Amino acid sequence: MGGPPPGFRPSGWVHLLHQVPHTNFQLRPVASTFAPQEQDYQQALLLVAALAGLGLAVNLLVLGLYLLRSCCRCRRPKAGPPEVSGSPDGGGCVTWSCVAALLLGCAGIGLGFYGNSETSDGVSQLSFSLLHANHTLSSIDRLVSETVERLDSAVRSELTTLEEVMAPRTELVAAARGARRLAEAVAQQLGELAFWRGVPLSPIRVAESVSFVEEYRWLAYILLLLLDLLVCLFTLLGLAKQSKWLVIVMTVMSLLVLILSWGSMGLEAAAAVGLSDFCSSPDPYVLNLTRAETGLNPEILHYYFLCNQMVSSPFQERLTLSQRSLASIYAQLQGLEREAVPQFPAAQKPLLALEEMLNVTEGNFHQLVALLHCRGLHKDYGAALRGLCEDSMEGLLFLLLFSLLSALALATALCSLPGAWAHFPPRNQNALSSGSRPSELLPPAGSDPHL
Amino acid sequence: MGGPPPGFRPSGWVHLLHQVPHTNFQLRPVASTFAPQEQDYQQALLLVAALAGLGLAVNLLVLGLYLLRSCCRCRRPKAGPPEVSGSPDGGGCVTWSCVAALLLGCAGIGLGFYGNSETSDGVSQLSFSLLHANHTLSSIDRLVSETVERLDSAVRSELTTLEEVMAPRTELVAAARGARRLAEAVAQQLGELAFWRGVPLSPIRVAESVSFVEEYRWLAYILLLLLDLLVCLFTLLGLAKQSKWLVIVMTVMSLLVLILSWGSMGLEAAAAVGLSDFCSSPDPYVLNLTRAETGLNPEILHYYFLCNQMVSSPFQERLTLSQRSLASIYAQLQGLEREAVPQFPAAQKPLLALEEMLNVTEGNFHQLVALLHCRGLHKDYGAALRGLCEDSMEGLLFLLLFSLLSALALATALCSLPGAWAHFPPRNQNALSSGSRPSELLPPAGSDPHL
Repeated sequence: MGGPPPGFRPSGWVHLLHQVPHTNFQLRPVASTFAPQEQDYQQALLLVAALAGLGLAVNLLVLGLYLLRSCCRCRRPKAGPPEVSGSPDGGGCVTWSCVAALLLGCAGIGLGFYGNSETSDGVSQLSFSLLHANHTLSSIDRLVSETVERLDSAVRSELTTLEEVMAPRTELVAAARGARRLAEAVAQQLGELAFWRGVPLSPIRVAESVSFVEEYRWLAYILLLLLDLLVCLFTLLGLAKQSKWLVIVMTVMSLLVLILSWGSMGLEAAAAVGLSDFCSSPDPYVLNLTRAETGLNPEILHYYFLCNQMVSSPFQERLTLSQRSLASIYAQLQGLEREAVPQFPAAQKPLLALEEMLNVTEGNFHQLVALLHCRGLHKDYGAALRGLCEDSMEGLLFLLLFSLLSALALATALCSLPGAWAHFPPRNQNALSSGSRPSELLPPAGSDPHL
Repeated sequence: MGGPPPGFRPSGWVHLLHQVPHTNFQLRPVASTFAPQEQDYQQALLLVAALAGLGLAVNLLVLGLYLLRSCCRCRRPKAGPPEVSGSPDGGGCVTWSCVAALLLGCAGIGLGFYGNSETSDGVSQLSFSLLHANHTLSSIDRLVSETVERLDSAVRSELTTLEEVMAPRTELVAAARGARRLAEAVAQQLGELAFWRGVPLSPIRVAESVSFVEEYRWLAYILLLLLDLLVCLFTLLGLAKQSKWLVIVMTVMSLLVLILSWGSMGLEAAAAVGLSDFCSSPDPYVLNLTRAETGLNPEILHYYFLCNQMVSSPFQERLTLSQRSLASIYAQLQGLEREAVPQFPAAQKPLLALEEMLNVTEGNFHQLVALLHCRGLHKDYGAALRGLCEDSMEGLLFLLLFSLLSALALATALCSLPGAWAHFPPRNQNALSSGSRPSELLPPAGSDPHL
């Protein structure tokens, strides 16, 4: 076959994230193979998520200390001379750093929208592959039932008619009996090929639940992104309009969104590490899971999951036997046509019907060979892995970047908003000058030393 | 088979864009079926692209008239009293509309990055499908050569040995001769199945040229998007810093990028209409093109491109004949083993070798049946179409939106930039107040009626 078809290779990011040290709550190292059912592994992922919680705590602490310090500095000069209090470019610098941080946050939000859409693309590719695999599996099932039914009905009606017609010559009846035995053997062999019949796992149901979860994840991120965007834009508006109450409300909202950002960052980091562990060697995990869920023969699962020249088809022998039996039936029918038809013209009709049935069965047989071959299902598996480990992984990393940028931007904004707000002119003067100063980021006119 | 597998359906956008009226240069209506080699159709697409040129012309005309009018208004009051000249909130309003337009342009640039990446995704899916199809086709070729060679060598060595060993009994030699004839027939039948041998079209080369073109398209858009982004950001910087020379340079650059935006919009509109014409019914065009390029039997092409129950496999008959011949060879070898081995023990070795060869050939035969079945190649075709008609189409529409937003934003900015620039304070005062007014979007202090 000349090498496997172009398939899935784990990317550099997968390898990098797979290297993240895994430890349980007792800080003992844990193997980094994907095992979501094991408690130690769950603890390792929870610890990764907890890092974000730590980041949030440090962030809030630094923020609190900074605000406390600037509050003290703010209050001290109030007792001193007025020249020192409103350092002329302090307010502008603070405001500009706030605006720059918010614009950076907006860029992060753009990345977040992109990442959310990429993740969604990857998951929908996974669902699509599952649907396609389901189609293949149910086609095998249906094709086998159809073919077996056709063979059975031919054995019951046409072969019986033939035997009755040719009853006077026992050697012809014996040949027909031989064909009947062969047809029954083929029907039995084919019946055993429908390996997915009665398996409790339905790929279509897995696809449905994956799509269901993904829909809510997608929606939750869209809402988070929109909330983030609104906070950024309204904060910018508040700064531009120098509206104190808007800036105060947005400061509170920023704090809320900051907490949400760190929370989502924790979830994303844990998900990215888990996904990288899965993607670095997905075969063993999926193989074990499928074996446990379906109870299928490991030989069949290996054939479909590996699909290379080393693994021979577990259906090969049955297919070859069925094929030989079909060819023998054909040869016997040809013999009967030569021998019996001149003597019993009534035998012609059932014989022709049997040959027609045999042609259709051989066509179905070829379709069955094609469906049972590992190429189709293995390609679906590869596409599902690519969706999950390339697109979704990329999307997840962009979402992580978004959370990081958003947290940085909001932390900077929270640091500078009270400072900027303290430099707003008092309400009455604001109302007076609002017509001429729509963009005012200036210190109040009264404290401007240049005037 | 119970309905086709989940495949490609043209989206609503494809239907919508396919409805765009097509006319040639003489404004006579042209059929909207995709036919890029026909002059009338080329003219229809060129006309769609020319609409963007018309838009550019109208845009430049309106811009020129607006600037002329505001220039006249600007110059007239200079002779009049100074109170009228610098209407206090005119500058701020103009500047803010410019900032809003530029921010809108930045949002458009974000959409453009997304669209560029989507288009690239779609095209890379097309390349990937072509590579996969190439792998399938070359596997068929290699498998056929391998099997035929194996059969030929068995006929030359083992069957000849067998005939020499069994020479004393002519009826056994006749049976061996029968097996030889059947093996030669199978080799010939199989040789005819390698339908892609000698076909001048190589999917791998098509994939390479598609990727090559796509790389340059992607790079060109990235450069355009970055240029656009830089112009927006530096214009904002110029407004914030009230730097006259920066704003002048950026006005000129904006004009350039405006022309580029309209140009790219024309290309995208023509590409979107062409792609929608292709995607609304891709089969006939691809079928005709492949037939012309490969010279393959239309029956084979129909089988692969349609791949439903209506179209029977053109290989069915050959496969069935080969299968029957293989079964007959097996039966004859079994007979020979029964008859000849007790009498000629030397016949055992070549007979076992022949049976081994037959088992391998039957395994290869099943693989060949699977590869020749339309499912695999048709799935690649469907994936290529989905890549082109869903992802690339979506990306193209986002790029169109980017061009539109960018053109709107730049046109608005060009309208308001000279106005904003006229309100900048003169150079010396700017230097004096630059420390305290980092964000100055105010009319010059001298003309402020509030002071």
